[in-house]
Amino acid sequence: MQDDKPQVQEDLERVGVTNLKTIVLTEWKGRKYTFTPKIELVIDLDGKKRGAHMSRLVESITESIEEEIVLRHGSLEDVGKAILEKLSGTHPFNKARISIDTELVIPRKTPKTGKMTMESYGIGVKVSREDGVYRKALTVAVIGNTVCPHAMEKTGGKSHIQRAEAFLELETRYDNLIDLEDMVSCVEQAFPSEVYGLLKTEDEVYIVEKMFANPKFVEDVTRGILDAARKRFKKCRINVRTVSQESIHRHDVVAEGSAVS
Amino acid sequence: MQDDKPQVQEDLERVGVTNLKTIVLTEWKGRKYTFTPKIELVIDLDGKKRGAHMSRLVESITESIEEEIVLRHGSLEDVGKAILEKLSGTHPFNKARISIDTELVIPRKTPKTGKMTMESYGIGVKVSREDGVYRKALTVAVIGNTVCPHAMEKTGGKSHIQRAEAFLELETRYDNLIDLEDMVSCVEQAFPSEVYGLLKTEDEVYIVEKMFANPKFVEDVTRGILDAARKRFKKCRINVRTVSQESIHRHDVVAEGSAVS
Amino acid sequence: MQDDKPQVQEDLERVGVTNLKTIVLTEWKGRKYTFTPKIELVIDLDGKKRGAHMSRLVESITESIEEEIVLRHGSLEDVGKAILEKLSGTHPFNKARISIDTELVIPRKTPKTGKMTMESYGIGVKVSREDGVYRKALTVAVIGNTVCPHAMEKTGGKSHIQRAEAFLELETRYDNLIDLEDMVSCVEQAFPSEVYGLLKTEDEVYIVEKMFANPKFVEDVTRGILDAARKRFKKCRINVRTVSQESIHRHDVVAEGSAVS
Amino acid sequence: MQDDKPQVQEDLERVGVTNLKTIVLTEWKGRKYTFTPKIELVIDLDGKKRGAHMSRLVESITESIEEEIVLRHGSLEDVGKAILEKLSGTHPFNKARISIDTELVIPRKTPKTGKMTMESYGIGVKVSREDGVYRKALTVAVIGNTVCPHAMEKTGGKSHIQRAEAFLELETRYDNLIDLEDMVSCVEQAFPSEVYGLLKTEDEVYIVEKMFANPKFVEDVTRGILDAARKRFKKCRINVRTVSQESIHRHDVVAEGSAVS
Repeated sequence: MQDDKPQVQEDLERVGVTNLKTIVLTEWKGRKYTFTPKIELVIDLDGKKRGAHMSRLVESITESIEEEIVLRHGSLEDVGKAILEKLSGTHPFNKARISIDTELVIPRKTPKTGKMTMESYGIGVKVSREDGVYRKALTVAVIGNTVCPHAMEKTGGKSHIQRAEAFLELETRYDNLIDLEDMVSCVEQAFPSEVYGLLKTEDEVYIVEKMFANPKFVEDVTRGILDAARKRFKKCRINVRTVSQESIHRHDVVAEGSAVS
Repeated sequence: MQDDKPQVQEDLERVGVTNLKTIVLTEWKGRKYTFTPKIELVIDLDGKKRGAHMSRLVESITESIEEEIVLRHGSLEDVGKAILEKLSGTHPFNKARISIDTELVIPRKTPKTGKMTMESYGIGVKVSREDGVYRKALTVAVIGNTVCPHAMEKTGGKSHIQRAEAFLELETRYDNLIDLEDMVSCVEQAFPSEVYGLLKTEDEVYIVEKMFANPKFVEDVTRGILDAARKRFKKCRINVRTVSQESIHRHDVVAEGSAVS
Repeated sequence: MQDDKPQVQEDLERVGVTNLKTIVLTEWKGRKYTFTPKIELVIDLDGKKRGAHMSRLVESITESIEEEIVLRHGSLEDVGKAILEKLSGTHPFNKARISIDTELVIPRKTPKTGKMTMESYGIGVKVSREDGVYRKALTVAVIGNTVCPHAMEKTGGKSHIQRAEAFLELETRYDNLIDLEDMVSCVEQAFPSEVYGLLKTEDEVYIVEKMFANPKFVEDVTRGILDAARKRFKKCRINVRTVSQESIHRHDVVAEGSAVS
Repeated sequence: MQDDKPQVQEDLERVGVTNLKTIVLTEWKGRKYTFTPKIELVIDLDGKKRGAHMSRLVESITESIEEEIVLRHGSLEDVGKAILEKLSGTHPFNKARISIDTELVIPRKTPKTGKMTMESYGIGVKVSREDGVYRKALTVAVIGNTVCPHAMEKTGGKSHIQRAEAFLELETRYDNLIDLEDMVSCVEQAFPSEVYGLLKTEDEVYIVEKMFANPKFVEDVTRGILDAARKRFKKCRINVRTVSQESIHRHDVVAEGSAVS
């Protein structure tokens, strides 16, 4: 029935499954990872076909996962590509795209006392295939802060400070090797200070001093990320969005920019 | 069929409709209000009845709304009580409870330049009826901030600052007259500073100075709200929860307390 | 300080305030409306300026609201345009965009018993200005359902049914007069059946019979909306996304398409 | 400073960290698990102390995680208990509670074609300690469906069907051994049909036939879970909440009940 002509013969751009939660295993640079991501897998649909065979989309995901248990993929984008390749053998399409959204937890040391701390980042990996060519878009969501330089100047050294979250997305060729950890670094260096899950008093003093030495608007943070990303990652379309959760307002302030490297 | 004996004859505590979005009109102290709340309306269900007649629950809401268009109720709890009274005439129950969650927008003046600003608060109004007796629970969710006194001491005057949100709930007799605006005031005075949608430079300087003069842990804010609420509102069970969105961490800190007045 | 040269002289595409909750009054075709929307207001920022004067963005919103109390605007896009016009007199920009997201509640009659019911729709109004020219994008989010035709065929008349939500967006010239109510109609007629807040038994039977007479995949719904929107609204870019919350799966299925009229 | 007397000397019930995302490893019945949960860790605070030493709370979490990398804990509640024990050595409290919320993915076979499918469940593990005694509360959130028996009777075999989600919580002694998988089974058997990530046509027909053979109100589902849980789990306080996302309405219907076993 899915292959019947529909009443309205309109090409559809994206048809598929979304909000599918599953488990994904990878092995990246010798370290094993287990993720429980949310997945969207969509294909284009010709105006002459009534529907996609949705179960084949899900099957391409579950069969890839089954293989991974034995043979771990190298990265989340390798998992995405494997799923699209499998799907191309069972369901016709011109364009397909898989989006994998999950959390990456990285162990760190606190800045002064050197204790172990676990830092969590939102990550998104999109792999698309069009006419057999693969591309990808990688995103990291990183929590930091802003410190208002204008209030600091007007009060002679005081300011309002708040949590901020920045999103860095890189769109590029599939084989352009990029570490999510490097993307996180690009974002963290652009905040007045990086943040940590654990801070002992000595660490906390260090972070507060760093914030006051380094006041930044949300615009400054976005530009700092754009600048660092352009220098570090080549042949990418770069998109940045930073949202500052103002401590003196109920609303947020935002700055977005993009660049090509 | 809803009145048939069910297979498992178990009394149920709360059965009804939830996440119902609608429109509610009130007239409180001479000012007209229009709300678009989310409503939950639940009743208890005897073990001998298979189901509630859900459409009668919805009808008690829509018929009350229809009446309000002509004759505005005095407050959201009056609307809630009117709905429960109507329901008691069409559906048997021992206990019933309606929850109305919405936003209250209050016009203010900025602290120094005196410009108009609109401030938004989350509000919740619960009205319950048990054996014919009405009670209520009123909640306000208010955005403010915390300023760490410990970091301020250790750095000699600097600190980390962040947005915080406090929730004040009062449970009391139905006829205990309480203004949501007074509840908001109780919360706002307990923060290092209140916040505003609009702040010109002069206002911003005033707020930042106020924050630094008044550093508070999340525990201090919760205790300040408890103390003010106990003095202001009589014969209430008081519950307070404050969440501080730390600017030096990815996680939040929280303090909860309760009291009886 | 906002007018100083920044360290990284990069043009930013969108700088401003977001997640600002306020109150907005309109009068559309003789009926008065009160909304409590979430607003985003952003402008582009030249690489030579360090920051936007955020308070002027908020002021353009609050001053417009103050005027509306006396003189109600005709529609949400009129409110948006008034805010952008006001802002153009106080802050330099080439491009500006305001997004107003809120709920529209429309009274209806149930299909068979003719009782009053209140139906709620998510709506979004974006107004943009570039080099003095205004455009707009209107969105409605409408809840309905899907009924699987494939399962119906295979089981000889049974099927799985589920709630679905469709999003219709129209991008067009500012002066292309479009009723949000007409957009809602375009979406509702494309579902197996429209839904209601209140349904008495007779109404419920009618809706269930209608669903079974009219089975549709999520792809059918998206195409039905595209087709109706193209016929009804001229000179628009049309975007449709429908998400079906499968009752036989934990995940959702989705279909997206677009057209130009 | 945290040990100073506060201005308002009020005991606080729960003070601590919340929304902390981290990684947790366990080994349960021979199978290794990796979770990336959200954690809340709170203690009571004496009216004579101004604040909790928040970093010690975080440290008790991160040090436990560090140990787990070498020596995996047997279950999420073992992890929770280990954290509370560690904390009791570094920070004074009378009561403490840790909440661990995450996703559990269980591999399954589709009902007819026997293909591998991955099923995801929301799980919550709370461990509390009061005067040295440990207790726990385990929660599973399971997606299923409801099929209206009333509409089926009135239409002679048709009905409205929709996704539903049920929450089963068990409160009990810490050493009452309970498998989350068994809790999931208790919930799944109470729905008209269980659901799967993957369903080939033959499986889908089986599920749809099962739904129609087994129509249930949201009240029936809640009672079915209560009944099964009481038989299966001894010496527990049992709480159940089921929410049905109606396909004929914009709102949900809900049924809650509790029992003691």
